[in-house]
Amino acid sequence: MKLQRSSPILSSFLALRNNKHTQTTHLAVRSFSNTMDNRAKLLPAARVSNNRQDVWTIVNEAAAASPKQPIVNMGQGFFGYNPPKFITDAAKASLDRVECNQYSPTTGRPSLKKALADAYSPFWGREIDPVTEVTITTGANEGMLSAFMGFIEPGDEVIVFEPFFDQYISNIAMPGGKVVYVPLHPPVNGATETSSAGEWSIDFDELKAAVTSKTKMIVLNTPHNPVGKVFSKDELLKIGQLCVENNIIILSDEVYDRLFYVPFTRIATLSPEIERLTLTVGSAGKNFYATGWRVGWLIGQPHLIKYVAAAHTRICYSSVSPLQEACAIGFNEADKNGFWTEAKAEMKAKMDRFNEIWPELGLPYSEPEGGYFVLVNFSKVKLPEDYPFPAHVANRPRDFKLCWFLIQEVGVAAIPPTEFYTEQNAHLAEDYLRFAVCKNDDVLDTAKERLRGLKKYIQ
Amino acid sequence: MKLQRSSPILSSFLALRNNKHTQTTHLAVRSFSNTMDNRAKLLPAARVSNNRQDVWTIVNEAAAASPKQPIVNMGQGFFGYNPPKFITDAAKASLDRVECNQYSPTTGRPSLKKALADAYSPFWGREIDPVTEVTITTGANEGMLSAFMGFIEPGDEVIVFEPFFDQYISNIAMPGGKVVYVPLHPPVNGATETSSAGEWSIDFDELKAAVTSKTKMIVLNTPHNPVGKVFSKDELLKIGQLCVENNIIILSDEVYDRLFYVPFTRIATLSPEIERLTLTVGSAGKNFYATGWRVGWLIGQPHLIKYVAAAHTRICYSSVSPLQEACAIGFNEADKNGFWTEAKAEMKAKMDRFNEIWPELGLPYSEPEGGYFVLVNFSKVKLPEDYPFPAHVANRPRDFKLCWFLIQEVGVAAIPPTEFYTEQNAHLAEDYLRFAVCKNDDVLDTAKERLRGLKKYIQ
Repeated sequence: MKLQRSSPILSSFLALRNNKHTQTTHLAVRSFSNTMDNRAKLLPAARVSNNRQDVWTIVNEAAAASPKQPIVNMGQGFFGYNPPKFITDAAKASLDRVECNQYSPTTGRPSLKKALADAYSPFWGREIDPVTEVTITTGANEGMLSAFMGFIEPGDEVIVFEPFFDQYISNIAMPGGKVVYVPLHPPVNGATETSSAGEWSIDFDELKAAVTSKTKMIVLNTPHNPVGKVFSKDELLKIGQLCVENNIIILSDEVYDRLFYVPFTRIATLSPEIERLTLTVGSAGKNFYATGWRVGWLIGQPHLIKYVAAAHTRICYSSVSPLQEACAIGFNEADKNGFWTEAKAEMKAKMDRFNEIWPELGLPYSEPEGGYFVLVNFSKVKLPEDYPFPAHVANRPRDFKLCWFLIQEVGVAAIPPTEFYTEQNAHLAEDYLRFAVCKNDDVLDTAKERLRGLKKYIQ
Repeated sequence: MKLQRSSPILSSFLALRNNKHTQTTHLAVRSFSNTMDNRAKLLPAARVSNNRQDVWTIVNEAAAASPKQPIVNMGQGFFGYNPPKFITDAAKASLDRVECNQYSPTTGRPSLKKALADAYSPFWGREIDPVTEVTITTGANEGMLSAFMGFIEPGDEVIVFEPFFDQYISNIAMPGGKVVYVPLHPPVNGATETSSAGEWSIDFDELKAAVTSKTKMIVLNTPHNPVGKVFSKDELLKIGQLCVENNIIILSDEVYDRLFYVPFTRIATLSPEIERLTLTVGSAGKNFYATGWRVGWLIGQPHLIKYVAAAHTRICYSSVSPLQEACAIGFNEADKNGFWTEAKAEMKAKMDRFNEIWPELGLPYSEPEGGYFVLVNFSKVKLPEDYPFPAHVANRPRDFKLCWFLIQEVGVAAIPPTEFYTEQNAHLAEDYLRFAVCKNDDVLDTAKERLRGLKKYIQ
């Protein structure tokens, strides 16, 4: 499988796999009396030594260089508004409690584990044991890393769908895992017609071909970032069956699990055989509009959770105590006060409000089935041939140029999704941009007004 | 170098180095139709697969089994009281600010980086650049891991003094590093006379002999946990010179940096040559009595900090936002309101208050020069020959038996320090126990009263 692409994380991963340093020169120019051998001793590890600009740096740079200030930032998926008051109040109360400011148990505060078991048991159709089947992590991100660190040995293979959340790749690389990519195929008429994000599809022959005797895990993400797809029950059954046949651990990233606009299936709940293999990942940051809180969790059977927890202990020791306590109260409250229903309705309204602009511009998009991202197809936008793109943008796929152009010409920032692809499959997404709609309505309206400035470039 | 010992973390490390699984049986007994090969696929990675009981589990178990309820817990180093009001108030205020609840920049909130640069520049005798010379981590623990992940390649060697903070070992193992141990030697008359913790000494010939062409880093810890030693300027100069000669990165864990009762030297400040090699680790949890907040940082020159930050991004992405903001305000306030002076005086008073019990019992201890732990020598305590120790305690060094005995007979929990040693050197500490004095005064008084119950066992 070809593994070339441009993200710094993947490049580091490749450098790691090739077991060589991407030699950096910033130390070599210093004039110490040490030998070259000694200077080399200060070099970073391959896993962090790539200096290539990542998408966030490029977007920030473009924003700083734009004449349209301030930029309307619909790039990164942080919320433009505060968490609900019932949870910030709970956090404030926790700060007055001595035990809530000290180390939590490494597997998490019992109150939060209990609240999560209570909240998720109805979906599982059985009582989840808060002690042995739930473990708290420092955000879902470190939770995923803990799962990889808990199970991956050097050379083990992990199947990841493209596009992927970019942190997966570096997280799999850390314990020496090898990523095997399987693309989601865009809707056939994606360049000309709006259709459901569910039409981004798996070629199951490709998926089966990706399984080898070394396949240890598969990573799912539903609702999906950046596609907005909610994997159907039928798709999940097929994936689950393949995993059962091959004893593959399923790491299901379900951080947008409260934001679905079509029926949502949790793969762990499909059968006991599938549940035995499944680790389900959740995020208080995504659930409660608090991406900066760094409270995540994994739910799974004891033979899996035990080792995720052990890895987490070795990575972060324990996670942030007062905000864990707040999330415990938050879950208890949210289930009672209708927060989840309200949150979903509000996000769907934002999605619909923002997406009104695309028919007006004649640009097709993938109608999201869940989450807060929308992928829009910009193939009809004609970029001026002589447009002065900086070199580090000019040598990337067309979506990076679209991104730069949008920031400069209309002052709206979005994310180029080929950042989430291998080079081999980047062409699938080079006409798309990802917009995050988890922003205040006035921001969405301003973005729409600005995007009208694109009309003259649309053929 | 012999590397056998009993901690689960080190055993995992050994399993990792030997590149073999410590086979666990809990999966093998399940009766699936899968082949043995397929069952093996669900086994955890070697780095987390050891099931041996760790010290915290043993202490908790002992506490639960003790007739002296409730136990006075002087084991783990969490504070028995709340952070100062100025910082919890700052945390509460941060929870009302939208941007403080969302992702911080991966290297940390600019406000906290600025506050730290302002707070530490006077010690460095130059302006620390908050942008390039400070990076925020999810507690000091994940900060140390980020440093190892940033610089250690498989086979690189890291020198660690014994006794060590146990997380160092698993953190070095994760990127494939090899730990090379150098013991701190206890005071010669430690079994009979109280003396300064500073008398735990380095044999510099041993230290020099530990350096090889593969030595990439050395880990320092001053003020030291569990010894209470503050490394002298002379010791640090010798260590620093050795590192300069061999271009060894110095990872200086200074999380107790505001609690010193003799002059305290920061190794980074000794010379430009040493500073070029030094990463200094700090902890808001230790500084502000908030071990559950998980806010730490590293200070160092850009050629080092850059890669620590890159590793941190790949591990946790970013750290907890509202508490970072609170710490920024906390540092600004503490420097103005005399908090550091007060904190030091309060902790020294607790230390003196608690340690009054040892002369009364005739037990010698190492008079701490810093931090909040005290090591006490129990060689004079005679354990009854037929005492019913459980098997998993009976097969550990004498300090584990002392620990168990103390919990059962007087109801005070302390930590057996051989947990922080290799088996080879564990004998150096088998008569000691570690007590944490960061507790309310009434807890210290109760502990003293209970410890008087030991008199009949002291010869």
